[in-house]
Amino acid sequence: MADVGALVWVVPGGHIPFPGHGPEPQFTGFDELCVLNGTDSEAELELDVYYEDVDPVGPYRILVGGRRIRHVRVNDLIDPEAIRLDRPYGLVLRSPVPVVVQFLRQDTRLPGVVALTGTMAYPV
Amino acid sequence: MADVGALVWVVPGGHIPFPGHGPEPQFTGFDELCVLNGTDSEAELELDVYYEDVDPVGPYRILVGGRRIRHVRVNDLIDPEAIRLDRPYGLVLRSPVPVVVQFLRQDTRLPGVVALTGTMAYPV
Amino acid sequence: MADVGALVWVVPGGHIPFPGHGPEPQFTGFDELCVLNGTDSEAELELDVYYEDVDPVGPYRILVGGRRIRHVRVNDLIDPEAIRLDRPYGLVLRSPVPVVVQFLRQDTRLPGVVALTGTMAYPV
Amino acid sequence: MADVGALVWVVPGGHIPFPGHGPEPQFTGFDELCVLNGTDSEAELELDVYYEDVDPVGPYRILVGGRRIRHVRVNDLIDPEAIRLDRPYGLVLRSPVPVVVQFLRQDTRLPGVVALTGTMAYPV
Repeated sequence: MADVGALVWVVPGGHIPFPGHGPEPQFTGFDELCVLNGTDSEAELELDVYYEDVDPVGPYRILVGGRRIRHVRVNDLIDPEAIRLDRPYGLVLRSPVPVVVQFLRQDTRLPGVVALTGTMAYPV
Repeated sequence: MADVGALVWVVPGGHIPFPGHGPEPQFTGFDELCVLNGTDSEAELELDVYYEDVDPVGPYRILVGGRRIRHVRVNDLIDPEAIRLDRPYGLVLRSPVPVVVQFLRQDTRLPGVVALTGTMAYPV
Repeated sequence: MADVGALVWVVPGGHIPFPGHGPEPQFTGFDELCVLNGTDSEAELELDVYYEDVDPVGPYRILVGGRRIRHVRVNDLIDPEAIRLDRPYGLVLRSPVPVVVQFLRQDTRLPGVVALTGTMAYPV
Repeated sequence: MADVGALVWVVPGGHIPFPGHGPEPQFTGFDELCVLNGTDSEAELELDVYYEDVDPVGPYRILVGGRRIRHVRVNDLIDPEAIRLDRPYGLVLRSPVPVVVQFLRQDTRLPGVVALTGTMAYPV
């Protein structure tokens, strides 16, 4: 299996939509990081969260097995501290092995409506 | 005609929306791979599907003619096994000739609503 | 003014949504190419359209002034032939000077709903 | 903290949706630039706005602290002149230090509907 990707990925445009409408967890509003680890090694990724008005918070840790993907809702990151909803943030993700990272948002702030957006994260 | 693109492409954020609402096949929920093959040679692409909790499954095979595009719904990939709906996955696509790959999602889980998202896949 | 961008750009995932609902032209369904030409020279871009089952058609020509942007709906390209609605296609764009190209889709197939998606085109 | 990103970023596909519906400012229609500055230095970014039919306007200035993000609605840029709503434009952003830039659009032209799209900006 080839090693594919980069070691550092950046997402400047984080902002978890709040509140959400509809059955949980499918229609909860979220920002999500989608990681593919094509190597044979389990990887512990470190994630720093950047804000507009305070120093970065981190590292958050995300474990992704070898030859596995993992989709992590940013809403679910709570250690070292919960990421506040409805507040602008950005992310820098570091991995010990090459990975590929995609960013996805689901917005259900309006009842009966779902909006999606996303992009590949920026590889450094 | 120039050869444009890369030989390996990655999409970490797969997740076929389910269920869908509205007339099929136009409003079926789907994840889609859009491939452009600018070379003169027909290309048989090999696709491996990565999951969170089991080993990758593949190769799936996608044929794209020379100087042709092909849009393939991930929902329609059934050999070696159907890709389950509503389950996180990622993709690694390999081509014998340079191609360009775009990823698109259509979400019709809510009646009377369509949501779209997509991104260029990540070239290795 | 710096020259920014690339000479060749690719969009594999074209598909003009049809039909549309709502006042035209704001709510017409469309695929759109957004080009920024940061150079001092007017540029005549050549666009080839790729299909699943027939040879590419082109070149279509798009004029973008120096130090100008231009947003062109693919729906409006009619010479050498109109691009059919609701049919998968891909694009290869060539420019004599460096430009940057973004792709945008507006989907109004459902009355009272607008869905958007887009991505930077792929630079060669 | 590592320096991550590029010094020049381009967004060809600007177009602020107008009018908007729903409570402001959450549901105002907008185009947004999301900047992550991972360096230790405050950065004053210069932004030039390109149009289809007139010379570029700028520089607009955006201040982003060291180890900070900033999300700026294009709607809010007023000096040297307000950016008109519902008019196609493009952006070239220059930074004295490496940054990463993401583009996001929120479209609320239809009452009770929100549509999102976005992409990483193009790094030069």
